[in-house]
Amino acid sequence: MTENGEIIDKALSLATRCGLGELGTLSEAGSPQIKCMMKTRQDGLKTFWFCSNTSSKRVARIMEDGRACLYFFDPANFEGLLLEGRASVTREEGLLHDFWQEGMERYYPAGPDDPDYCIVVFHSERGNYYHGMINRDFEIKQGEI
Amino acid sequence: MTENGEIIDKALSLATRCGLGELGTLSEAGSPQIKCMMKTRQDGLKTFWFCSNTSSKRVARIMEDGRACLYFFDPANFEGLLLEGRASVTREEGLLHDFWQEGMERYYPAGPDDPDYCIVVFHSERGNYYHGMINRDFEIKQGEI
Repeated sequence: MTENGEIIDKALSLATRCGLGELGTLSEAGSPQIKCMMKTRQDGLKTFWFCSNTSSKRVARIMEDGRACLYFFDPANFEGLLLEGRASVTREEGLLHDFWQEGMERYYPAGPDDPDYCIVVFHSERGNYYHGMINRDFEIKQGEI
Repeated sequence: MTENGEIIDKALSLATRCGLGELGTLSEAGSPQIKCMMKTRQDGLKTFWFCSNTSSKRVARIMEDGRACLYFFDPANFEGLLLEGRASVTREEGLLHDFWQEGMERYYPAGPDDPDYCIVVFHSERGNYYHGMINRDFEIKQGEI
C-alpha cells in the first residue's frame, strides 16, 4: 500500500465513523457559514447525502451557489478531515423514499412526498487529512475512493 | 428579561461551555473551509481568541481575506450557534505571553516569542442560534453581549 493510500484509508475511516459532519456553504455576501448535518448515506469519500428542508435558508443558498465543504473531526484524538467540493439539492423521488425512516413525519408531516423534504448531496473534489504530525492534501476523483 | 435576551443567554451558555469551535474561512477560490480550533479566551459572544501557527495555510488565508464564521455545536441535544464576522491575526506581545502555557514548547520551541506562534482573533457581527423549534438571528454589537 502506498503512503497516500494509507492517508486515504485513515480519512475514509474517520468520515465513516462520524455520524455528524459540518457542512460549509457561502452566505449571499460570500462569507462562510457552517451547519452540523446528520449523515444519511455516503459513497466512500466521493459523495455524501443529508436530509434537509426545502424551505430552509441553507438549502436556498446551496441552490444559488454550490461551493461547499464538508468537515469531519474526532475530538478524542484531534483528527480532522476537510473535504472541498460542491453541494446540490435534489428531490429525486427514489432517494426521498430510500432515505425515509419512521419518525420523519415529525419533520415532514406529508411523508416522503412532503414538498419540504429534500436531500443535500455533497460531491468531494479534494481532501485534507490531519492527525498529529500528519497533514496531507489529496485529490478525489469520481470512481476512485 | 426579553425573549431576545433569553436567546442570547442560551447562545452565550453554549459558546462558553464549548472548548472547541469550528472556524470557517475562505479558500483562494472563495470557497468555504473549516477547521476545528481550541478556544483560548472569549469575551462574551463578541470576541474569541485562538492560538495558531504563523506558517499555516489557514493563517495566510485569514491575512488575505478576513471574512469568517465561528460555529459551536452540542451534539447531545442538537443545539447550535453560528457567529458570522471577521477574523484577523495578531502577534501582539502581551497576548502571546498571556496565552502561553506549559507544554506549548512542543509546538513553539522558541517559547512565547517563537515567530511561528500567533493568535487568531474572531470578532462577531451577528449570530444564529437554534435548538429544537427555536431558530433565531440576532445582531452582536461591540460593547453589548
